[in-house]
Amino acid sequence: MKDFKNQNNRIPQDYFFEGSEKLMEIWFKADHHNSDLRSIPRNSIVEILDKVNCQIISQLSNDFMDSYVLSESSLFISRHRIILKTCGTTFLLNALKPFLEYAKLLGFSEYQIFYSRRRFEYPACQPLAHQDFYAEIDHFDNLINVKGNAYTFGRLNDECWNLYVTEKPMMPERWDQTFEMIMMDLDLEKMRNFYRINSRDGADATRKSGIDKLFPGAVIDDFLFEPCGYSMNGLIDEDKYLTIHITPEKGFSYVSFETNYAVKDYIELIKKLLDMFGPMKFLFSLISEECSQISDGHRKLSKAYSFRNGYMRKDWQRCVVSDLDLTFAYFVCNPG
Amino acid sequence: MKDFKNQNNRIPQDYFFEGSEKLMEIWFKADHHNSDLRSIPRNSIVEILDKVNCQIISQLSNDFMDSYVLSESSLFISRHRIILKTCGTTFLLNALKPFLEYAKLLGFSEYQIFYSRRRFEYPACQPLAHQDFYAEIDHFDNLINVKGNAYTFGRLNDECWNLYVTEKPMMPERWDQTFEMIMMDLDLEKMRNFYRINSRDGADATRKSGIDKLFPGAVIDDFLFEPCGYSMNGLIDEDKYLTIHITPEKGFSYVSFETNYAVKDYIELIKKLLDMFGPMKFLFSLISEECSQISDGHRKLSKAYSFRNGYMRKDWQRCVVSDLDLTFAYFVCNPG
Repeated sequence: MKDFKNQNNRIPQDYFFEGSEKLMEIWFKADHHNSDLRSIPRNSIVEILDKVNCQIISQLSNDFMDSYVLSESSLFISRHRIILKTCGTTFLLNALKPFLEYAKLLGFSEYQIFYSRRRFEYPACQPLAHQDFYAEIDHFDNLINVKGNAYTFGRLNDECWNLYVTEKPMMPERWDQTFEMIMMDLDLEKMRNFYRINSRDGADATRKSGIDKLFPGAVIDDFLFEPCGYSMNGLIDEDKYLTIHITPEKGFSYVSFETNYAVKDYIELIKKLLDMFGPMKFLFSLISEECSQISDGHRKLSKAYSFRNGYMRKDWQRCVVSDLDLTFAYFVCNPG
Repeated sequence: MKDFKNQNNRIPQDYFFEGSEKLMEIWFKADHHNSDLRSIPRNSIVEILDKVNCQIISQLSNDFMDSYVLSESSLFISRHRIILKTCGTTFLLNALKPFLEYAKLLGFSEYQIFYSRRRFEYPACQPLAHQDFYAEIDHFDNLINVKGNAYTFGRLNDECWNLYVTEKPMMPERWDQTFEMIMMDLDLEKMRNFYRINSRDGADATRKSGIDKLFPGAVIDDFLFEPCGYSMNGLIDEDKYLTIHITPEKGFSYVSFETNYAVKDYIELIKKLLDMFGPMKFLFSLISEECSQISDGHRKLSKAYSFRNGYMRKDWQRCVVSDLDLTFAYFVCNPG
């Protein structure tokens, strides 16, 4: 941890890919009962994503949601909600203004923004506005008129996760929750499935890894990159999704899992993900609204001090911040 | 919250005093059973405090502790522990190296450091090494060989409280806990007691404000500054202390309360302090070791959503970080 500040200016010496995603979720309040964010035309979405520096790879829709697998992660658009998650060195914040402007045209003038991300391995490789969390906060402050609150969970000088959330406008109650698990330094044997040389396509990798069994009813849109790397969006039920993104390479392997489904037992889900990917380190966050069905989930997660195979909890934070219930935890595997 | 980054470069336009203290607590592990930090000679303590930019105003001792009221806050030295708390624009970190060197001479080669502080109103007025939390972390990283973990509780872009704690060496278990309550924007009527024009001396201010009734058995060393401002150290029992520091002036009024006494009911204590000082905003932190007697205190504090007179909880964080139990909360008074 010497020269912590200088670490932020490091540049990778060899090939490197930043798996850590920027994640923005915007909930809109409709001025008219027939407003629908899914009426943003596809070519406008493509233009917005151009500014972020990513492209649509495939699309999947149900009656509640349009889901897009992107060249760098995922986009979900439902009637009142946009979720954009992008990895690498994408400029996610470039999507903020055009999405807000489009939403306004469609009759959504009020909104609540959630923005979160794990620390970057190489912040200096990011667009300037993403190089540190304070720069990101400033970007929001300059673009929007609502107050946002910024938090960092975990260790500022080691593993940590940032959250920025704006004050909630008067809007209908949401029975919502988001669980995200971020895994680092993975079992390279298990990562083999996510190389083109070992799996035929996305569907093949999904089956081989067992991802298809996580939410058996989910409709899955998956993609296997050349020569390696994997993305999937799954539509579970109504506006409930899961999404998984995998950077399998040694030295910077990374897996993220995210779902807004009200999972009955998050401990069981975590165990499944640990068995599936075998990380040496992982962190998770569970955010829920007051009226979410999973409030008991926070209590149960508070008792998870360890997991089999030597995972020990390093940090645990249970919070009510900006009227949200939140649990953050960070685990490290001590083998032997 | 516009231009958050620029706010950090602000300079006060009128007279201002930074009440927010830097607080460092170091626990030492003795190499020999007769090592005692209280054998640091007084003239050496004076020299160390010179580097911090503060002076001893008075001293009070019992069989367990030497307590010093300083020109800027307080110092407590017991056999294995040093607590230094300094406000204003003092350079607290300058005391780290000389204290560690002295401790080593006396037979203490291992230690655990706790460093914490609220955000500053005017960071740009502080010594360079204290201007932001990352600079403080770097200062520790450059001076010591043990790993430290850094956390920020509350809102990075508004009210927050920073904690840096080094990994605990193998040392005897501690039944210890520290409760700190930091109050801002106080009732100016109640602040009148802490002006020389209204109170004769420290003892007079202590009685008038009711501070003498907080811990009835405590032996008190109090001081009333000219023209205003108040500091007190109280020795409760063995190595248990309380300390209160008051900046009463309108525009930047500030009160801090701290004790390591295992308080039976922290909610009652908070109510007493609110009645005594009438802040518009306050935050508190409770840190305890695993074997502290007050583990139930965290649970009780988690249920305090509000206090009478309109105090509403804005943020609450209950954590286990670096093997410490910690509760942080921030309240704001919404009058009417």
